[in-house]
Amino acid sequence: MNSSMIRYILGNILKVEGLLLLLPCLIAVIYQEPEGLCYFITALVSMLLGFVITIKKPKEYIIYLKEGCIATAFSWIIMGLVGCIPFLLTKEIPSFVDALFETVSGFTTTGASVLPEVETLSHCSLLWRSFTHWIGGMGVLVFLIAIIPLSGGSNINLMRAESPGPSVGKLVPKVKHTARILYMIYFALTLLEFIILVISKMPAFDALNTAFATAGTGGFGIKNDSIAGYSVTIQWVITVFMILFGVNFNAYYLLIFGSIKKAFSMEEVKVYFGIIIAATGIITVNILSLCNNVWDAITKSAFQVGSIITTTGFSTADFDLWPQTSRAILVILMFVGACAGSTGGGIKVSRFIILAKTMFKELNAYIHPRSIKKINVDGKPVEHDVVRSVNVYIVTFVIVFVTSFLLISFENNDLETNFTAVAATINNIGPGLNLVGPTSNFGHFGIFSKIVLIFDMLAGRLELFPMLILFHPGAWKDVFKKM
Amino acid sequence: MNSSMIRYILGNILKVEGLLLLLPCLIAVIYQEPEGLCYFITALVSMLLGFVITIKKPKEYIIYLKEGCIATAFSWIIMGLVGCIPFLLTKEIPSFVDALFETVSGFTTTGASVLPEVETLSHCSLLWRSFTHWIGGMGVLVFLIAIIPLSGGSNINLMRAESPGPSVGKLVPKVKHTARILYMIYFALTLLEFIILVISKMPAFDALNTAFATAGTGGFGIKNDSIAGYSVTIQWVITVFMILFGVNFNAYYLLIFGSIKKAFSMEEVKVYFGIIIAATGIITVNILSLCNNVWDAITKSAFQVGSIITTTGFSTADFDLWPQTSRAILVILMFVGACAGSTGGGIKVSRFIILAKTMFKELNAYIHPRSIKKINVDGKPVEHDVVRSVNVYIVTFVIVFVTSFLLISFENNDLETNFTAVAATINNIGPGLNLVGPTSNFGHFGIFSKIVLIFDMLAGRLELFPMLILFHPGAWKDVFKKM
Repeated sequence: MNSSMIRYILGNILKVEGLLLLLPCLIAVIYQEPEGLCYFITALVSMLLGFVITIKKPKEYIIYLKEGCIATAFSWIIMGLVGCIPFLLTKEIPSFVDALFETVSGFTTTGASVLPEVETLSHCSLLWRSFTHWIGGMGVLVFLIAIIPLSGGSNINLMRAESPGPSVGKLVPKVKHTARILYMIYFALTLLEFIILVISKMPAFDALNTAFATAGTGGFGIKNDSIAGYSVTIQWVITVFMILFGVNFNAYYLLIFGSIKKAFSMEEVKVYFGIIIAATGIITVNILSLCNNVWDAITKSAFQVGSIITTTGFSTADFDLWPQTSRAILVILMFVGACAGSTGGGIKVSRFIILAKTMFKELNAYIHPRSIKKINVDGKPVEHDVVRSVNVYIVTFVIVFVTSFLLISFENNDLETNFTAVAATINNIGPGLNLVGPTSNFGHFGIFSKIVLIFDMLAGRLELFPMLILFHPGAWKDVFKKM
Repeated sequence: MNSSMIRYILGNILKVEGLLLLLPCLIAVIYQEPEGLCYFITALVSMLLGFVITIKKPKEYIIYLKEGCIATAFSWIIMGLVGCIPFLLTKEIPSFVDALFETVSGFTTTGASVLPEVETLSHCSLLWRSFTHWIGGMGVLVFLIAIIPLSGGSNINLMRAESPGPSVGKLVPKVKHTARILYMIYFALTLLEFIILVISKMPAFDALNTAFATAGTGGFGIKNDSIAGYSVTIQWVITVFMILFGVNFNAYYLLIFGSIKKAFSMEEVKVYFGIIIAATGIITVNILSLCNNVWDAITKSAFQVGSIITTTGFSTADFDLWPQTSRAILVILMFVGACAGSTGGGIKVSRFIILAKTMFKELNAYIHPRSIKKINVDGKPVEHDVVRSVNVYIVTFVIVFVTSFLLISFENNDLETNFTAVAATINNIGPGLNLVGPTSNFGHFGIFSKIVLIFDMLAGRLELFPMLILFHPGAWKDVFKKM
């Protein structure tokens, strides 16, 4: 085990997080908030610690998938632990578990909050919450790969552990360049949303926060009523950008550098838009009687479908009060999730495409036992190993889901609350239904349940295995040797 | 496609069903009920039709998996269609869809009822309901194989399509003999339960019905309050037998003909009992405050755990009113189901063993990428194809489940009702929670939802694929040719 490389990566994570903590400091300076000091202290300590840890360079830069997963899991845990310190220092979230829940919810782009109301928070804390979404959206290790020279074939193992989706495609032969291109597209799209929101007359601070939270498909709002208080224009801008950030970023790469035709013929993207249109249509009809007119119904329905399928979690209406058909569709969308290679969570559209094709292939085998057809996606055969890993992913997802559901059901909340609480955290959405609905929060859960849900958020964001192998004794063998 | 063989099998099914319909006729004679005539007419017509259809022998007796599945699916649909006629003729269930729902619920050993109360039914109808459980429990095709000479290697394909579990084990080299042994064990255990129930002072008619419904893990009661009105002794007898009928019948075969040690070392059986003990323990503690004393709590908890995990569906208490922890555990048990090769439904314990081992194997692959270990069950490596089929099964189960959930949610019932209604039918349990709880019934659903749930019951009983291939155009090709 290359422990020294894990140490080196974690040290760099601390340095990067310290650096990123300077943005809320800047906001504190602008708004002259004393809370900024708490952020500054945390930033300094984090950076200092990072420098100390990385003084000794690792002898060997090469890591394997095992180390990649462990480094990723530890990185995300450390990010949460360090990132929650300002909330504790400012006493805005005095309980440690609550502060950790809020921070992990931020980084994992979940957007589930323990706060009954957010408008009393300082500007710097509001911004830090939104900014954690942006950092977590594309992934901090991907960021590290883009800016820090790491040699060897190690990068792909870090990226594989952190990136969402059944198969990590390198856009260009070098992982480092792929990471840079991804961050450039990400940055450009975020900037574009910010500009359009400001043009749509959203205050600049609100626009910055909203752009961060949309880009990462996070969902922390800076208003108690999330997005409901903003104009319909702003709501539509956010709807469109939520959906755009749920698209596989490969499509954007193809749009910019390759052929437009190829981008539009991506099967996953087509199915993704198909689901959005179908769900919006059904919900529009279903909630029509609750809305002022058809346009109002379409606005609310499209916003919520976009928000849930991309696992953002913003809301413009209390969908917990919608008719059961709409609620059922939203619950199903929670699991579908966005495209692979986007910033969204959930099981991912591409996995469902492969699953559906696996089922049809099986049916076909009953009819034509001797036919040996491979599953095709985008006209290319899917490798057996990808199909297998998708199957195993679903199985593991079910096991983690059921275990979490069982563990949190020891608190006497109703089934709907427990079921959607796990669904909303493991799929990185944010709000669920009933006691964790859009107008409620996760504060009422006990410490044990909160820890389970924190685990679920991390497991969901890192696609289960990097978090699960922490329970494997083999992962801990030699970790602390030769660090 | 060997259509004439499918025709021949279906004809024989009609003959057998006509024969089986004579039992309620006998009961009608004993209780001097005019409703018996309706059963007698149905029996006669069914037998006559069967004879006409089977006059022409098939040229070729060999069938493949495809024909096996189609014959099985059609057999079960025909059994439902013919079996519901007496309910319509006696006007005890005047609506066709309701009568079909009740009958399919019987044959699939689900036990979900559309009737708000059953005590007004005639004795012959009560017995027919319970008897359908017994017939469906071990499978009518297995019965056919046991009694009718079918040559060729066809039998295994029929048995494979009808028998529950990931892999159909032949107990003895000949399928016909395996079928006979299974039915003998089944018959002996049912008889034993009947005798013990009568000794425990249950009226003979009640004991016969209860023995049938327990043996098939069905769950239709002949009292409005299911089993709650009987003595604690009787409740314990039923508890024990429910659990016994959920055990893999291979274990009984080993007990009788092989070594006792082997029977007790079966991994699935051990896990099955482990789950029952754990769940009973937790629920006992959880419902203690609602019960008279610890013994009462254990009695209720063990009964309900046994009833749900074996997918029987009897009840001695309104578990819908139990605390949420208990309800959550029962919902999870609904999906676990009994052992493969038993009369119980659900996903089956052995599948979960393979799934859990698949997950651990995957985790292991992260830690030791070069190790090539096969999954072992009972000390023997599990074939790759079995693991694959278990994975595909889960994937297909999820797809069918979600689709059904979506389809029935167009009625404005709450999520818990819809979720547990699908869970209770696809897993062949019977009662769910809330509007389909143990004191309610499925009568309030609309026709469309009832048809979806009828499909789910059949799909669950036949392990999905035989029902799903009916949607494959290839299944219909040549079906009506050369019949």
